[in-house]
Amino acid sequence: MSAEPAAAYRMPNQSEIRIETVLQALADPVRLEMVRQLAKDDGELTCGAFDVPVSKSTLTHHLRTLREAGVIGGRPQGTTRLNWLRRKDLDALFPGLLDGVLAARH
Amino acid sequence: MSAEPAAAYRMPNQSEIRIETVLQALADPVRLEMVRQLAKDDGELTCGAFDVPVSKSTLTHHLRTLREAGVIGGRPQGTTRLNWLRRKDLDALFPGLLDGVLAARH
Repeated sequence: MSAEPAAAYRMPNQSEIRIETVLQALADPVRLEMVRQLAKDDGELTCGAFDVPVSKSTLTHHLRTLREAGVIGGRPQGTTRLNWLRRKDLDALFPGLLDGVLAARH
Repeated sequence: MSAEPAAAYRMPNQSEIRIETVLQALADPVRLEMVRQLAKDDGELTCGAFDVPVSKSTLTHHLRTLREAGVIGGRPQGTTRLNWLRRKDLDALFPGLLDGVLAARH
Protein backbone atom coordinates (compact mmCIF):
# COMPACT_ATOMS: atom_id res chain seq x y z
CA MET A 1 0.00 0.00 0.00
CA SER A 2 1.39 3.39 -0.91
CA ALA A 3 1.68 6.17 1.62
CA GLU A 4 -1.57 7.96 2.30
CA PRO A 5 -1.83 11.38 0.72
CA ALA A 6 -1.56 14.22 3.21
CA ALA A 7 -5.19 15.13 2.61
CA ALA A 8 -6.34 11.74 3.91
CA TYR A 9 -4.58 12.28 7.19
CA ARG A 10 -7.17 12.59 9.89
CA MET A 11 -6.78 12.82 13.64
CA PRO A 12 -9.73 13.63 15.89
CA ASN A 13 -9.64 16.48 18.38
CA GLN A 14 -9.79 15.45 22.02
CA SER A 15 -13.50 16.33 22.17
CA GLU A 16 -14.22 14.03 19.23
CA ILE A 17 -12.67 10.94 20.81
CA ARG A 18 -15.32 8.34 21.68
CA ILE A 19 -14.85 5.62 24.24
CA GLU A 20 -16.44 2.91 22.05
CA THR A 21 -14.05 3.71 19.19
CA VAL A 22 -11.03 3.72 21.50
CA LEU A 23 -12.03 0.35 22.97
CA GLN A 24 -12.55 -1.10 19.49
CA ALA A 25 -9.14 0.17 18.42
CA LEU A 26 -7.45 -1.33 21.49
CA ALA A 27 -9.30 -4.67 21.27
CA ASP A 28 -6.90 -6.17 18.76
CA PRO A 29 -3.76 -8.04 19.86
CA VAL A 30 -1.50 -6.44 17.24
CA ARG A 31 -2.75 -2.91 17.88
CA LEU A 32 -2.49 -3.47 21.62
CA GLU A 33 1.12 -4.54 21.17
CA MET A 34 1.80 -1.42 19.09
CA VAL A 35 0.33 0.70 21.89
CA ARG A 36 2.54 -1.10 24.42
CA GLN A 37 5.60 -0.34 22.32
CA LEU A 38 4.61 3.32 22.04
CA ALA A 39 3.96 3.49 25.78
CA LYS A 40 7.32 2.00 26.69
CA ASP A 41 9.16 5.28 26.92
CA ASP A 42 6.47 7.71 25.79
CA GLY A 43 8.49 8.28 22.67
CA GLU A 44 7.83 8.38 18.97
CA LEU A 45 8.14 5.45 16.60
CA THR A 46 8.42 5.55 12.84
CA CYS A 47 6.06 3.23 10.97
CA GLY A 48 8.97 0.87 10.32
CA ALA A 49 10.03 0.72 13.96
CA PHE A 50 7.11 -1.31 15.30
CA ASP A 51 8.06 -4.88 16.13
CA VAL A 52 4.88 -6.71 15.09
CA PRO A 53 4.47 -9.77 12.84
CA VAL A 54 2.31 -8.17 10.14
CA SER A 55 2.82 -6.93 6.60
CA LYS A 56 3.47 -3.29 5.89
CA SER A 57 -0.02 -2.77 4.49
CA THR A 58 -1.62 -4.37 7.54
CA LEU A 59 0.54 -2.18 9.76
CA THR A 60 -0.66 0.87 7.83
CA HIS A 61 -4.25 -0.23 8.41
CA HIS A 62 -3.66 -0.67 12.15
CA LEU A 63 -1.96 2.72 12.39
CA ARG A 64 -4.89 4.34 10.66
CA THR A 65 -7.39 2.62 12.98
CA LEU A 66 -5.47 3.76 16.04
CA ARG A 67 -5.08 7.27 14.69
CA GLU A 68 -8.70 7.72 13.65
CA ALA A 69 -9.83 6.48 17.06
CA GLY A 70 -7.65 9.11 18.73
CA VAL A 71 -5.32 6.61 20.38
CA ILE A 72 -2.20 7.73 18.56
CA GLY A 73 -1.00 10.84 16.83
CA GLY A 74 1.35 11.12 13.91
CA ARG A 75 3.39 13.67 12.08
CA PRO A 76 5.31 13.38 8.84
CA GLN A 77 9.07 13.13 8.97
CA GLY A 78 10.66 12.91 5.55
CA THR A 79 9.16 9.93 3.75
CA THR A 80 7.84 8.29 6.91
CA ARG A 81 5.79 9.37 9.88
CA LEU A 82 6.43 9.55 13.57
CA ASN A 83 3.72 8.04 15.75
CA TRP A 84 3.08 8.67 19.41
CA LEU A 85 0.54 7.65 22.01
CA ARG A 86 -2.02 10.36 22.88
CA ARG A 87 -1.64 9.60 26.54
CA LYS A 88 -2.57 13.07 27.80
CA ASP A 89 -5.79 13.13 25.81
CA LEU A 90 -6.76 9.60 26.80
CA ASP A 91 -5.86 10.13 30.46
CA ALA A 92 -7.91 13.33 30.49
CA LEU A 93 -10.96 11.68 28.96
CA PHE A 94 -10.76 8.21 30.50
CA PRO A 95 -8.51 8.40 33.56
CA GLY A 96 -7.08 4.98 34.33
CA LEU A 97 -8.10 3.29 31.10
CA LEU A 98 -4.70 3.25 29.47
CA ASP A 99 -2.88 2.24 32.66
CA GLY A 100 -5.36 -0.59 33.17
CA VAL A 101 -4.92 -1.82 29.61
CA LEU A 102 -1.13 -1.62 29.83
CA ALA A 103 -1.15 -3.47 33.17
CA ALA A 104 -2.59 -6.57 31.52
CA ARG A 105 -0.16 -9.45 31.39
CA HIS A 106 0.60 -10.66 27.87
CA MET B 1 -34.81 -16.90 22.43
CA SER B 2 -35.42 -19.33 25.26
CA ALA B 3 -33.34 -19.28 28.41
CA GLU B 4 -29.97 -20.93 28.03
CA PRO B 5 -29.72 -24.36 29.58
CA ALA B 6 -27.72 -24.45 32.76
CA ALA B 7 -25.05 -26.54 31.05
CA ALA B 8 -24.34 -23.72 28.58
CA TYR B 9 -23.64 -21.31 31.37
CA ARG B 10 -19.99 -20.38 31.25
CA MET B 11 -18.04 -17.82 33.22
CA PRO B 12 -14.23 -17.64 33.02
CA ASN B 13 -12.06 -17.77 36.10
CA GLN B 14 -10.13 -14.59 36.84
CA SER B 15 -6.97 -16.11 35.38
CA GLU B 16 -8.77 -16.85 32.10
CA ILE B 17 -9.90 -13.26 31.52
CA ARG B 18 -8.12 -11.71 28.53
CA ILE B 19 -7.77 -7.98 28.00
CA GLU B 20 -8.61 -8.17 24.27
CA THR B 21 -11.86 -10.01 24.99
CA VAL B 22 -12.80 -7.56 27.74
CA LEU B 23 -12.15 -4.60 25.44
CA GLN B 24 -14.19 -6.21 22.65
CA ALA B 25 -17.05 -6.81 25.07
CA LEU B 26 -16.98 -3.22 26.30
CA ALA B 27 -16.64 -1.70 22.82
CA ASP B 28 -20.36 -1.77 22.10
CA PRO B 29 -22.65 1.12 23.08
CA VAL B 30 -25.44 -1.12 24.40
CA ARG B 31 -23.11 -3.35 26.39
CA LEU B 32 -21.30 -0.30 27.74
CA GLU B 33 -24.63 1.12 28.90
CA MET B 34 -25.46 -2.20 30.59
CA VAL B 35 -22.11 -2.07 32.40
CA ARG B 36 -22.84 1.51 33.50
CA GLN B 37 -26.18 0.41 34.91
CA LEU B 38 -24.55 -2.49 36.77
CA ALA B 39 -21.84 -0.18 38.09
CA LYS B 40 -24.29 2.40 39.39
CA ASP B 41 -24.65 0.92 42.84
CA ASP B 42 -22.57 -2.22 42.51
CA GLY B 43 -25.74 -4.23 42.73
CA GLU B 44 -27.35 -7.07 40.84
CA LEU B 45 -29.80 -6.67 37.98
CA THR B 46 -32.17 -9.27 36.62
CA CYS B 47 -32.11 -9.71 32.84
CA GLY B 48 -35.37 -7.78 32.59
CA ALA B 49 -34.13 -4.85 34.67
CA PHE B 50 -31.68 -3.40 32.13
CA ASP B 51 -32.95 -0.21 30.54
CA VAL B 52 -31.63 -0.61 26.98
CA PRO B 53 -33.47 -0.28 23.67
CA VAL B 54 -32.96 -3.83 22.38
CA SER B 55 -35.04 -6.96 22.05
CA LYS B 56 -34.93 -9.67 24.65
CA SER B 57 -32.92 -11.98 22.38
CA THR B 58 -30.38 -9.24 21.66
CA LEU B 59 -30.12 -8.54 25.37
CA THR B 60 -29.47 -12.23 25.98
CA HIS B 61 -26.69 -12.13 23.37
CA HIS B 62 -25.10 -9.07 25.00
CA LEU B 63 -25.30 -10.66 28.44
CA ARG B 64 -23.61 -13.76 27.14
CA THR B 65 -20.84 -11.72 25.48
CA LEU B 66 -20.20 -9.79 28.69
CA ARG B 67 -20.30 -12.94 30.78
CA GLU B 68 -18.01 -15.00 28.56
CA ALA B 69 -15.52 -12.13 28.47
CA GLY B 70 -15.47 -12.08 32.27
CA VAL B 71 -17.00 -8.62 32.59
CA ILE B 72 -20.13 -9.76 34.41
CA GLY B 73 -21.17 -12.67 36.54
CA GLY B 74 -24.57 -14.21 36.84
CA ARG B 75 -26.48 -16.60 39.02
CA PRO B 76 -29.91 -18.12 38.56
CA GLN B 77 -32.79 -16.79 40.62
CA GLY B 78 -36.03 -18.57 39.94
CA THR B 79 -36.78 -18.27 36.24
CA THR B 80 -34.42 -15.37 35.67
CA ARG B 81 -30.81 -14.58 36.47
CA LEU B 82 -29.09 -11.96 38.55
CA ASN B 83 -26.18 -10.23 36.87
CA TRP B 84 -23.39 -8.27 38.47
CA LEU B 85 -20.24 -6.51 37.41
CA ARG B 86 -17.02 -8.42 38.16
CA ARG B 87 -15.39 -5.26 39.41
CA LYS B 88 -12.98 -6.94 41.82
CA ASP B 89 -11.65 -9.28 39.15
CA LEU B 90 -11.34 -6.53 36.55
CA ASP B 91 -9.74 -4.09 39.00
CA ALA B 92 -7.25 -6.76 40.05
CA LEU B 93 -6.28 -7.61 36.47
CA PHE B 94 -6.52 -4.19 34.83
CA PRO B 95 -6.41 -1.55 37.58
CA GLY B 96 -8.02 1.67 36.35
CA LEU B 97 -9.60 0.24 33.21
CA LEU B 98 -13.16 0.09 34.46
CA ASP B 99 -12.97 3.49 36.16
CA GLY B 100 -11.61 5.01 32.97
CA VAL B 101 -14.34 3.47 30.86
CA LEU B 102 -17.04 4.56 33.29
CA ALA B 103 -15.62 8.10 33.43
CA ALA B 104 -16.33 8.60 29.72
CA ARG B 105 -19.08 11.12 29.07
CA HIS B 106 -22.05 9.72 27.19
